[in-house]
Amino acid sequence: MESREAMIQPVDVVRWRGPSRATDCDSIVIEEPLEIRVNDRPLAVTMRTPGDDEALALGFLVSEGILTTATQVFDVLRCADPDHPDLRNIINVMVEPALAPPSSELNRQRYATSSCGLCGRATIESVRHCAPPLPTPPHFDRGVLLTLPDRLRAGQSAFERTGGLHAAGLFNKEGQLLHLAEDVGRHNAVDKVIGLALHNGPWPPDETILMVSGRAGFEIVQKAAVARIPALCSVSAPSSLAVELAREMNLVLAGFLRGDSMNLYAGAEFVM
Amino acid sequence: MESREAMIQPVDVVRWRGPSRATDCDSIVIEEPLEIRVNDRPLAVTMRTPGDDEALALGFLVSEGILTTATQVFDVLRCADPDHPDLRNIINVMVEPALAPPSSELNRQRYATSSCGLCGRATIESVRHCAPPLPTPPHFDRGVLLTLPDRLRAGQSAFERTGGLHAAGLFNKEGQLLHLAEDVGRHNAVDKVIGLALHNGPWPPDETILMVSGRAGFEIVQKAAVARIPALCSVSAPSSLAVELAREMNLVLAGFLRGDSMNLYAGAEFVM
Repeated sequence: MESREAMIQPVDVVRWRGPSRATDCDSIVIEEPLEIRVNDRPLAVTMRTPGDDEALALGFLVSEGILTTATQVFDVLRCADPDHPDLRNIINVMVEPALAPPSSELNRQRYATSSCGLCGRATIESVRHCAPPLPTPPHFDRGVLLTLPDRLRAGQSAFERTGGLHAAGLFNKEGQLLHLAEDVGRHNAVDKVIGLALHNGPWPPDETILMVSGRAGFEIVQKAAVARIPALCSVSAPSSLAVELAREMNLVLAGFLRGDSMNLYAGAEFVM
Repeated sequence: MESREAMIQPVDVVRWRGPSRATDCDSIVIEEPLEIRVNDRPLAVTMRTPGDDEALALGFLVSEGILTTATQVFDVLRCADPDHPDLRNIINVMVEPALAPPSSELNRQRYATSSCGLCGRATIESVRHCAPPLPTPPHFDRGVLLTLPDRLRAGQSAFERTGGLHAAGLFNKEGQLLHLAEDVGRHNAVDKVIGLALHNGPWPPDETILMVSGRAGFEIVQKAAVARIPALCSVSAPSSLAVELAREMNLVLAGFLRGDSMNLYAGAEFVM
């Protein structure tokens, strides 16, 4: 089993605490794609935190109904991605031939999983292919950003505030709530808000801020980037891949908005 | 836009508060599959909370890089699932023909999404097909169950306790931690624990308890059921589909384990 240290990594942040601004180093959770293969054929790509990768592959095959006992497994091999030889982010599970899905299904499976909105696109490259980096973002008032968690909560019903639903809100630069959506799935709440903006405007939402109630994972940044929303705020932590993608796509990414403080993981120079 | 009330539903629960046991009614978030179609062809199935379904479909197509403006959309139609005519859980987005993915890709996409471990299987029927209901579960000591949140946290590193990672732990009936895994994705943490049990035992894990740090959604219950884990505990809320599946599969499902209290949403008669 890999060490715990491999699950987190340092990242440069700009911390605002009231009127004071400081550059600092934060620790964030690593999120990277892992490709799961069965008998040399790709089955799925999942965005995961490294650690127990072999167990993840085996457990995934149990969850998918492919494996029921350990004796069905001949070997579990770790391979390098030819495009990223340093990553070794492929686990190849060798199983009894009768258990492996037919190759036609495996090929289909991989195609869809890697472009599935819920799983997140498998690689930053595929997102870049889908959407170029955003133009230079506008400037945002940090005082406005700090009000967004309360404004999002105020827009939710009492039930949701007690837990159970994720919320996403689209705000203008002045902090006015334009669209709010809630869902059991974080990604769905964001897709709903994007769909409301597409249908009712403003579109493109190039002067807006997306505020989410949960964590800012890769797929949330991906959705904001493709929809051309220039700023993403969260009350919680981003993942490593979320920060990397936000920086590549020119997004402002703020986390841990609490009281009068926040951490800026990307685009700090556009928050005044 | 649908009313907020359609996002939650009542459910019978057994509440333990210290030594007192009472049957009560709780509110839980509705989780149901929604199929998104483009020009009459299935593209994806997502497990979502009803409400803003049309916006969800549009936003999903933006996130997938299919739509960039509202003028590309001719119509957004809600259709009934022929197998569940009361559900009307299909949104069909009519777009410019040139934007729709080729039919070969659409067919592939649907196949994989509906069986993708991250998205959850699309229907309870497909889970039932994959695994029959569990045999009658063993009896669990509620005092042991109430210790599991602390035992799970104790097994995590300091960093994870401060946020950023989901944890899943497999415990025996006496509350001993057998396997622990952490991941940025809840489903991955559960798959890792299942893979550790498959590889290192006990297997089948038919006298164990799965404890998760986050919510108990449909896909978490599905993974426990397919792996034949008879009890699932969470510090937070389950979804409607999680409760429904747990009851059909004979799982014990406990939520809101906090201090000396918990809610039992399924299998309450097996917790003493």
